[in-house]
Amino acid sequence: MTLTLYSNQGSGNCYKVRLLMHQLGHALTIKEMDVVAGECQKPDFLAINPVGKVPTLVLDEGVVLSESNAIMLHFADETQYMPMDHLDKTLCYQWLFWEQYSHETAIAVARYSMHYLGNTEKEDPRLPQLWEKGYTALKVMENHLKDKEFFVADRYSIADIALFAYTHVADQGGFDLTAYPHIRAWLDRVKAQPLYASMDDI
Amino acid sequence: MTLTLYSNQGSGNCYKVRLLMHQLGHALTIKEMDVVAGECQKPDFLAINPVGKVPTLVLDEGVVLSESNAIMLHFADETQYMPMDHLDKTLCYQWLFWEQYSHETAIAVARYSMHYLGNTEKEDPRLPQLWEKGYTALKVMENHLKDKEFFVADRYSIADIALFAYTHVADQGGFDLTAYPHIRAWLDRVKAQPLYASMDDI
Repeated sequence: MTLTLYSNQGSGNCYKVRLLMHQLGHALTIKEMDVVAGECQKPDFLAINPVGKVPTLVLDEGVVLSESNAIMLHFADETQYMPMDHLDKTLCYQWLFWEQYSHETAIAVARYSMHYLGNTEKEDPRLPQLWEKGYTALKVMENHLKDKEFFVADRYSIADIALFAYTHVADQGGFDLTAYPHIRAWLDRVKAQPLYASMDDI
Repeated sequence: MTLTLYSNQGSGNCYKVRLLMHQLGHALTIKEMDVVAGECQKPDFLAINPVGKVPTLVLDEGVVLSESNAIMLHFADETQYMPMDHLDKTLCYQWLFWEQYSHETAIAVARYSMHYLGNTEKEDPRLPQLWEKGYTALKVMENHLKDKEFFVADRYSIADIALFAYTHVADQGGFDLTAYPHIRAWLDRVKAQPLYASMDDI
């Protein structure tokens, strides 16, 4: 099985796929893409994935997969990283959709603006509303983790990987997790998982 | 099985769930929520779903489900509305995530602003960029449908329901589908499905 991942080293969405594949023991051939320089919008990449986004995974039969959480679902199915129970699977899907709609769109967007483009509120007037939306998401997570070790079925799954990806670097988007002790403890639990590797190391 | 759906009649996300459940033959007890008046942010609803969004589905055991596409996955599994093949399932997930991230966030948001709040570009300066993003999404759909009857595995599935929900009312967000003949033909194919019901009728 040859798996080619078009990836960006600092992207949380790409890191999700790299972390899961590392934990599953699947080797990846990485093609590093310079997102800030617009490499994902160039014709040769659009010919591979018309949506023009990373992560994009090419299977050896030439099948092209995109959307980080869909790629994780593809490989996690029937492994320890996906709940087995029907309702727990649904709750896992729910957190994956929530992450993409209500979390990534605030925390990752603020991080991209500040950390990659070097913006402050002056250059990017959207930042205050991204912080407000991001803290709303963090509150939902903090509340959920009050009496839980992990997001679904009390075990580490791709729901945790999806939410970890941008939460653990939220400070780069101007977020302060000091008032979120349950999130901070959960971040440590994710980092303590077997075969965990940091964003820079894989 | 008692299924209580907190729903808004004109919401595409709520319509997805109502349409699938109608096609599956599952009866719903509908609780209509006035989204524009902020009913989803009131304490009694937040006690049910802390995320404060509809659709919210309460199963008779008291289990609360949210995220329209996760609710559809819960009920479509092992039915004709979900592909059976592993790779086709992944492609279905991919379209569901793409719909929530790249389609709904432009087309539904523009529609909400214009159709529900009565805004024009003057009141909502985000509209031109929502139209640009929405047309980018529509182009991806048009291109995909050039040689396909439905989004995944050449048969009607929840991927079609998810994308139909806001595409068929895109005109209410200022989008013109005249130049998108493949999308228009696909909308007609969805409307011709057994047990199809319009947004107003269920």
